[in-house]
Amino acid sequence: MDATGASADLDPEEFRRLGHAVVDWIADHRAGLEALPVRADVEPGWVRERLPAALPEDPAPLDALLSVVDDVVVPASTHWQHPRFFAYFPANASLHSLLGDMLSGGLGAQGMLWSTSPAATEVEQVLLDGLATALGLDPGFTFAGGGGGSIQDSASSAALVALLAALHRAEPGWRERGVTGTERVYVTAETHSSLAKAARVAGLGARALRTVEPVPGSRAMSPQALAAAVAEDVAAGLVPVLVCPTVGTTGTGAVDPVRAIAEVARPHGVWVHVDAAWAGVAALAPEFRHLLDGVELVDSFCTDAHKWMLTAFDASLLWVREADALPAALSITPEYLRNAASESGAVVDYRDWQVPLGRRFRAFKLWTVLHGVGLSGLRAHIRGHVALAAGLAERVRADPAFELAAEPSLALVCLRVVTGAGPDADDDASRELLERVNASGEAFLTHTVVGGRYVIRVAIGAVTTGPEHVDQLWEQLRAEAERVRQRYAA
Amino acid sequence: MDATGASADLDPEEFRRLGHAVVDWIADHRAGLEALPVRADVEPGWVRERLPAALPEDPAPLDALLSVVDDVVVPASTHWQHPRFFAYFPANASLHSLLGDMLSGGLGAQGMLWSTSPAATEVEQVLLDGLATALGLDPGFTFAGGGGGSIQDSASSAALVALLAALHRAEPGWRERGVTGTERVYVTAETHSSLAKAARVAGLGARALRTVEPVPGSRAMSPQALAAAVAEDVAAGLVPVLVCPTVGTTGTGAVDPVRAIAEVARPHGVWVHVDAAWAGVAALAPEFRHLLDGVELVDSFCTDAHKWMLTAFDASLLWVREADALPAALSITPEYLRNAASESGAVVDYRDWQVPLGRRFRAFKLWTVLHGVGLSGLRAHIRGHVALAAGLAERVRADPAFELAAEPSLALVCLRVVTGAGPDADDDASRELLERVNASGEAFLTHTVVGGRYVIRVAIGAVTTGPEHVDQLWEQLRAEAERVRQRYAA
Repeated sequence: MDATGASADLDPEEFRRLGHAVVDWIADHRAGLEALPVRADVEPGWVRERLPAALPEDPAPLDALLSVVDDVVVPASTHWQHPRFFAYFPANASLHSLLGDMLSGGLGAQGMLWSTSPAATEVEQVLLDGLATALGLDPGFTFAGGGGGSIQDSASSAALVALLAALHRAEPGWRERGVTGTERVYVTAETHSSLAKAARVAGLGARALRTVEPVPGSRAMSPQALAAAVAEDVAAGLVPVLVCPTVGTTGTGAVDPVRAIAEVARPHGVWVHVDAAWAGVAALAPEFRHLLDGVELVDSFCTDAHKWMLTAFDASLLWVREADALPAALSITPEYLRNAASESGAVVDYRDWQVPLGRRFRAFKLWTVLHGVGLSGLRAHIRGHVALAAGLAERVRADPAFELAAEPSLALVCLRVVTGAGPDADDDASRELLERVNASGEAFLTHTVVGGRYVIRVAIGAVTTGPEHVDQLWEQLRAEAERVRQRYAA
Repeated sequence: MDATGASADLDPEEFRRLGHAVVDWIADHRAGLEALPVRADVEPGWVRERLPAALPEDPAPLDALLSVVDDVVVPASTHWQHPRFFAYFPANASLHSLLGDMLSGGLGAQGMLWSTSPAATEVEQVLLDGLATALGLDPGFTFAGGGGGSIQDSASSAALVALLAALHRAEPGWRERGVTGTERVYVTAETHSSLAKAARVAGLGARALRTVEPVPGSRAMSPQALAAAVAEDVAAGLVPVLVCPTVGTTGTGAVDPVRAIAEVARPHGVWVHVDAAWAGVAALAPEFRHLLDGVELVDSFCTDAHKWMLTAFDASLLWVREADALPAALSITPEYLRNAASESGAVVDYRDWQVPLGRRFRAFKLWTVLHGVGLSGLRAHIRGHVALAAGLAERVRADPAFELAAEPSLALVCLRVVTGAGPDADDDASRELLERVNASGEAFLTHTVVGGRYVIRVAIGAVTTGPEHVDQLWEQLRAEAERVRQRYAA
């Protein structure tokens, strides 16, 4: 409020007018997105040079800010919502989800405790229970079945809290004495770097990570190698704490055998955390559910609604089989957070499922997606992109200028240019092709390295990506390949 | 996309129509908020019983969802944006900030790397540099001065990453070997529980926390006691890692002496992290800057824009004096995240300043606040609430039915009912008064315990709280006190 007692904020009628203007900006931006370059083409410092260093002393009209957005922010943005964004994994910020995010902001609730917003907590519980069913997860992952789900900010944070719950389970003294240095965490060379980060954050250090060998000829974790590693560590007096099978690795979409891994891990009490950040949502379609075979045996399962399930970041879905596992590891209750509902034991306080205390009503954006698209629409979204990937893979297979660097996995296609001049030349040609495509602004791709070789990743899955966009990409890949092959084959 | 290749999402024109409807819903909700009960008055399970357990198979119109929001979500929400919300600390979700959050969603950028959205990164850098100046922080906290700021999701996460940077600095082997069990972290009994949580998450365990005694007769950390504790620990072969002075504790708004603490800590290489989550933003007004005296000597400083600075959660501002401190502790770079800009060293990759990999364009909501309100408006917002708290404290002092349980701190007033029948009766009467006020729905308060005694906290600071709302609260407090005093004094 100011000296007259008036609020510093917009009054609701001003917000109505400006809010409509912002909605119009968003509608226009999305409608015109396809005409923009996908990748920002600016040098470091370009934005900073164009903004005043000092903050404004006095209020200014929104129009002035929207002009800066048009002139500075948009050109300096890599457009993740562009239909020819094929880089990393998709980050679906659907317009459906934006409606929910707006409502969440309008309500302005803090969902740290049940009592600070019963609706934020219970809507999340209902949606996560419903999604567990829709994904074909075991009922043990629902609140009704003794487990439960929560929305984390990211799969990285989900992996971290799963690791903390695993440490608490493995070592009863962990909350008091911390880690001992004997803990071990099992991954593969393809596991997401967030697992290494979680181990570092949790005080285990890199030495706690044990990289399990793959099944020969694949990139999937070998259950036999895992069994040997665990046995060796147990014999050495170490404490196997957690194994992380991945369903859909970031590099190539490889799938670790969840069932066989869980069967090795369980007799030793090792926590099994499935990282299905990208691929897990595909299980909405029954024909892809085999990827999660054995998930009923694991302790925690994570998939991101904010990658390929139309929900704007952040909305990583984490289910655990024991509803008390995360609170047991993470809860600390000072006086100012005590309340009757929490002490009754009849409610979930989601602050105890995460590192931060505060939390937004994130379930709202998930809700508007589920309500506005329906499970049938989500399945169509997934199936459509998988079909596009299959079509692209067919073209790659049939074209001597390319090879598949891995079998296509759902909507991810990994390919290389074939020059005929050997793998080193293919590496260079592939790198050059990717750089040329990205510099064109027509599409945006990223790369990985598989078996020491440079690989172009085509991750199909942006909200508005349709057949024409993959066709356009393929035409560009072919044209650029022709150019670079001439150079490298020479 | 569906089988016809059409997107699963709204088309932009549908979004324009529905987005306007959602903006209207928000405007109406905020305009009508004052007439709603502040606290949700529902039993556990009330929301779950009213929502279908199964997710919808087919899409449904937004209107149907908005009806459920009106009928189920709003009654089951504790209204943090209500002008008579005086509980916890405020969680300002101003309408200005909602505009920015909408734009962030519209752009749908992932700001994990500079290259994945140069604008998201550089706008954040510019705003954090500008805010450092506006708060009167030392230039060493700006990127221009070798340090830098970032937006974290919460002060809890800020404390965690500060601790990780401190561990890395204190123990060069930390990233490889993890923690050793000899680390010590210095807090007081009033320090926020997020520090204990950070120590637990980081693998240190509760034993690593050393609770430093207060200056006699106060709740502020004693620098002498800190010096003695550090000396004792060093002599015992332990490793003092971090001390956390608080500027504005959660319980009573107490302020630890930052300068004297930093002077004790620095010679031992102990990282000083200032937790000014609630109170720090007051330094926008020069007359409150004395609270931060000595902050130029510390390693990291955190204050929340999402509490009392009009910016919707999540927007916790963390500055560090060494721009490389967090990346050095947290960076891990797999092949699929490698890119030319990062390798040039000319850019900031904010993923290395936090635990999660992904991040929203959170600076957008901070930007619309700063642009739409200006620093002058923010100062007026802070000053107005501090003045209201001073007025309330005067009334408490002058009324024999009450006493101040602590000196007022900025906009936080801590009070107790005085029954005349001794402190136990005062405890009971105060508890009953708080419960009666909260049950009325007219206002919402929370409590703490000071020196073993029950204390009612009145935290003034909601976006629309003005003099009339504090007047209404005071009238209610007086009326309820009269009632409970009769019972307890009897």
